[in-house]
Amino acid sequence: MDPRIEEYLSENREHHLDELKQLLAIPSVSALPEHKQDIQRAAQWLAESLKRAGMEQVKVMPTKGNPVVYGEWLKAEGKPTVLIYGHYDVQPVDPLELWETPPFEPDIRDGQIFARGASDDKGQTFMHIKALETILRTTGSLRLNFKFCLEGEEEIGSPNLEEFVAEHKDLLAADVLVISDTSMLGRGKPAICYGLRGLCGLQIDVTGAKADLHSGLFGGAVQNPIHALVELLASMRNKDGQITINGFYDRVLPLTEEEKEAFRALNTDEEQTRKDLQVPDLFGEKGYTMVERTWARPTLEINGIYGGFQGEGIKTVIPSQAHAKITCRLVPDQDPEEILALIEEHVRTHTPPGVTVEVKRFDKGRPFITPIDHPAIQAAARAYEKVFGVTPAFTRMGGSIPIVETFDRLLHLPIVLMGFSYPDDNFHAPNEHFHLECFDNGLRTLCYYWYELEQAIG
Amino acid sequence: MDPRIEEYLSENREHHLDELKQLLAIPSVSALPEHKQDIQRAAQWLAESLKRAGMEQVKVMPTKGNPVVYGEWLKAEGKPTVLIYGHYDVQPVDPLELWETPPFEPDIRDGQIFARGASDDKGQTFMHIKALETILRTTGSLRLNFKFCLEGEEEIGSPNLEEFVAEHKDLLAADVLVISDTSMLGRGKPAICYGLRGLCGLQIDVTGAKADLHSGLFGGAVQNPIHALVELLASMRNKDGQITINGFYDRVLPLTEEEKEAFRALNTDEEQTRKDLQVPDLFGEKGYTMVERTWARPTLEINGIYGGFQGEGIKTVIPSQAHAKITCRLVPDQDPEEILALIEEHVRTHTPPGVTVEVKRFDKGRPFITPIDHPAIQAAARAYEKVFGVTPAFTRMGGSIPIVETFDRLLHLPIVLMGFSYPDDNFHAPNEHFHLECFDNGLRTLCYYWYELEQAIG
Repeated sequence: MDPRIEEYLSENREHHLDELKQLLAIPSVSALPEHKQDIQRAAQWLAESLKRAGMEQVKVMPTKGNPVVYGEWLKAEGKPTVLIYGHYDVQPVDPLELWETPPFEPDIRDGQIFARGASDDKGQTFMHIKALETILRTTGSLRLNFKFCLEGEEEIGSPNLEEFVAEHKDLLAADVLVISDTSMLGRGKPAICYGLRGLCGLQIDVTGAKADLHSGLFGGAVQNPIHALVELLASMRNKDGQITINGFYDRVLPLTEEEKEAFRALNTDEEQTRKDLQVPDLFGEKGYTMVERTWARPTLEINGIYGGFQGEGIKTVIPSQAHAKITCRLVPDQDPEEILALIEEHVRTHTPPGVTVEVKRFDKGRPFITPIDHPAIQAAARAYEKVFGVTPAFTRMGGSIPIVETFDRLLHLPIVLMGFSYPDDNFHAPNEHFHLECFDNGLRTLCYYWYELEQAIG
Repeated sequence: MDPRIEEYLSENREHHLDELKQLLAIPSVSALPEHKQDIQRAAQWLAESLKRAGMEQVKVMPTKGNPVVYGEWLKAEGKPTVLIYGHYDVQPVDPLELWETPPFEPDIRDGQIFARGASDDKGQTFMHIKALETILRTTGSLRLNFKFCLEGEEEIGSPNLEEFVAEHKDLLAADVLVISDTSMLGRGKPAICYGLRGLCGLQIDVTGAKADLHSGLFGGAVQNPIHALVELLASMRNKDGQITINGFYDRVLPLTEEEKEAFRALNTDEEQTRKDLQVPDLFGEKGYTMVERTWARPTLEINGIYGGFQGEGIKTVIPSQAHAKITCRLVPDQDPEEILALIEEHVRTHTPPGVTVEVKRFDKGRPFITPIDHPAIQAAARAYEKVFGVTPAFTRMGGSIPIVETFDRLLHLPIVLMGFSYPDDNFHAPNEHFHLECFDNGLRTLCYYWYELEQAIG
């Protein structure tokens, strides 16, 4: 990497922080309609910032909701293209009284900048702009092509992102997607999240007799829908925590030795987790560590169950109906539709006598993974090493990030999640902040990353 | 039986019905405080009626709630004593607009007397008084000793009966208890109910982590309390509908061949029941008919279950808690306390890992049976045969009658349930009525019964 880059970053630090303060001062809360104008102001501000950085074709593109800010630099002829996603909307700030300084009056103290959006995600989005600006101003050019897609509705569930991406597949076409909207593991512990679990959900409705029955008169005559339901649900898992739906694990990619080693290297303290959660024991699929189970193994969870009498004491009723809600966390290469079909087949073949069972399908999302050994991941690892002096942890997440799922599904490209905040930066909470060391190191890491990435895939 | 008795009953029929109308005209609704005075009036009316019939020591005895009317005739020296239970309180009458004639203006039409309490239980209680009055007036004496215990709180669950019986064990001491508060099987189909199931209930509370968890972050790390609960509940019953609680059936009295034959003789149409209940199949413990299962076999029913998310759609939560409510219907000689202890032991030995489980005990009542071949039952059967020309059906009931359980537990005496109403007499509903043929035949049956009973046990 060009040595002038580090120099430029140092010289312009105060200037960069002043600019960031401008962005953070705009109360672009997407959840509250009274901030509609602020959303527009934030989008315009970013558009101007992208132009100043040297991006071209910059536009504030309307959606049915808040606009997407687009910009590109495509002069690296024949070179791969990087798509950078970020979001400029922020969470509401209540309870306001818990903020030590007003959420939209950015304040630097103790080496941290305090403001709503400082880390999630204005701060990290801003770093991406400044990294490219820095390279362009110092070297006059970029070695890869770049596109920005900056959203204004992430904090309300990105209701219009899917349609936007689907309608602009060509505009957004790229070879790698980079998102900085996650956390490191802690101080000095950078992490690259390379996989997320997918999701599918369904509801099971069991119906027995046409109405609730008196258990004195009919107890012994008819199937009890609650009993049928618990029998059906219990048949879906064995004592070892393994899901017994036929074919459930068929497409699960086994963990590689490299991944297992990466997870072991995290030295997760299971006993501490057990204490924190106040459970007598941790529990999960036999043969895997807790980290493996939560990041890389699928689950089937009963999220809700209800039927019959729920009041105080006892009521001798045989209810007419009983219900359960189930979601599965899926891992590559499980397919949500296929898993739903397998569960439906299990329900069909395991329905106890005397009742009818219906299944309703709900939300679903595909699992995502960019293998550790993918050049885009390995290049990111080298960039982190240069700046932090340590190999980053390779992590996966047990949950889903809807935007990642959307991009993965619509654009089919490797995705690199490079977050620079700390886990205790108060995302979504009062006194959100971003450590200036993260800002500094992150900017440098990004500059190194574009260099390393070009070396790897250019 | 003395032939003058039948004659007397015919001659005094109009007079008896007029008296019954007086009793039915008193709106002694125990559930409504505004009828407190009417309750007192009904009690006084019965006390006067008992005196006129020839009973002695007649008193309206206070309880913490409504009074008990007591009367006795104990001049059959050295002979057994019969205790007659009835209740003079009635159900509320709403919806009033559905009554064809006002509920407390007794009206005779189409061979039926319409009024609240006509069958449940003023009509049947009144018959017991008139039967003894008839025998005394015609023969000058009774061949057995008699005691009346007429309650005013049956329709609100007899909250003070237990204490009253416990405090007056000597006063109420008897050799047989006769209750006429149930139904025949239909027109021309008298029935003697000789057994009731008992009850015990409990609640199971399963606790996992200290708070609800996100299934993305923790799915695979901890036991899901709902899953633990369904596994625990499913372990309590097998596919053949048999309860798998260790020792659950140990004390169950097997059905005798005589009982099985009596039940078969009912010719119950299981297919019709299936259609009426709109279930794909009936279901219950393998190896027994529906009638056997509901009357003479114990059950374990999950009456309610709840935990986690119950709203629309899906929520990816691992709840902190899950709950179930269970009641068992018990048969002789099962002991409710023992069954609760067996279930608790099952819970203890089948609690899945990773959760804690607590059990709360609720209501319980002992099952009751007076064997078919008991002389008091057989004498009743002969009395029915004399009047109806058919052997009565020997039935049991799947439910519990709390007063029967109370008397059984505190007084330890054979109990004969001789009901004279029809199943469609609108107990608890608008247009409650009592067929005059039931009134006539019932009175005669009772007179025959006291004769037969004296022959059998006198």
